[in-house]
Amino acid sequence: MAYAQTEMAGPDAGRGIPRELSRGEIEEFLLGQRIARLGCHAGGVTYVVPLVYAYEDGAVTAVTTEGRKTAMLRENPRVCVEVDEYDADGTGSWRSVIAYGTCEELPGDAIEPALALMRERFASTAGRAAELRPLGPNVVVLRILLDEISGRSVER
Amino acid sequence: MAYAQTEMAGPDAGRGIPRELSRGEIEEFLLGQRIARLGCHAGGVTYVVPLVYAYEDGAVTAVTTEGRKTAMLRENPRVCVEVDEYDADGTGSWRSVIAYGTCEELPGDAIEPALALMRERFASTAGRAAELRPLGPNVVVLRILLDEISGRSVER
Repeated sequence: MAYAQTEMAGPDAGRGIPRELSRGEIEEFLLGQRIARLGCHAGGVTYVVPLVYAYEDGAVTAVTTEGRKTAMLRENPRVCVEVDEYDADGTGSWRSVIAYGTCEELPGDAIEPALALMRERFASTAGRAAELRPLGPNVVVLRILLDEISGRSVER
Repeated sequence: MAYAQTEMAGPDAGRGIPRELSRGEIEEFLLGQRIARLGCHAGGVTYVVPLVYAYEDGAVTAVTTEGRKTAMLRENPRVCVEVDEYDADGTGSWRSVIAYGTCEELPGDAIEPALALMRERFASTAGRAAELRPLGPNVVVLRILLDEISGRSVER
């Protein structure tokens, strides 16, 4: 019999008696976190990139700039959004949400409302106002409508 | 001119004067972290899942069990491995590494050495020994040989 440390058996090992999160728990978790990992695929390449996001009404909003990610998303808007949290309480507990969705770019007049949403979310999750600085050119607002969401947790 | 909070401008926004990490910094970072996000793609679906890993000599090792991830990896072994750290020092600094590689399954006699490597890595990063518990059936040892790695950081 092989032994693994319990802390190794994260979301991938299925050994820690993970529990499925309810839809309400998933919503609460997505509202309380700030960083997602976005997975996209185009031209035979899979790409995973961290993304500061705000969740609202079944969709993820992010403000980004032109680059590799936006080029890939235009080629293939089907994405995976992953959010997780490890050991927030020092007990080795974890929680993760994995969602699938379709990404669209919002028009320029969506930038200000998107930024306002992200500032509001930052203030509520960080407990303080965010520092502000000018956005550069080539800003892109992404909205990812999630059509399949699941979440799991292990509480220790 | 639109203003975004600086904390929003994570790895994706390119506004925080990110710096490319050297190969040495990338190695050090991968050795010091424990959780990667693995991106894989098969059957038209992109999937991102957190993965407890150990890095050594240009490759990522993980011990997991049969499931969605392993089925997809058998269909398409080309993957993306992403590791990041946010605000470890409370200043809003961040660091991320994105790597591409090819995943292979190691034979059964690789399980014990892989677990030993992961225990050693856990002890060195967590500063304590991991708790042990029995591994269940259907254990799979993955080795992802990384062939392209880049890293960025913003220090505040």
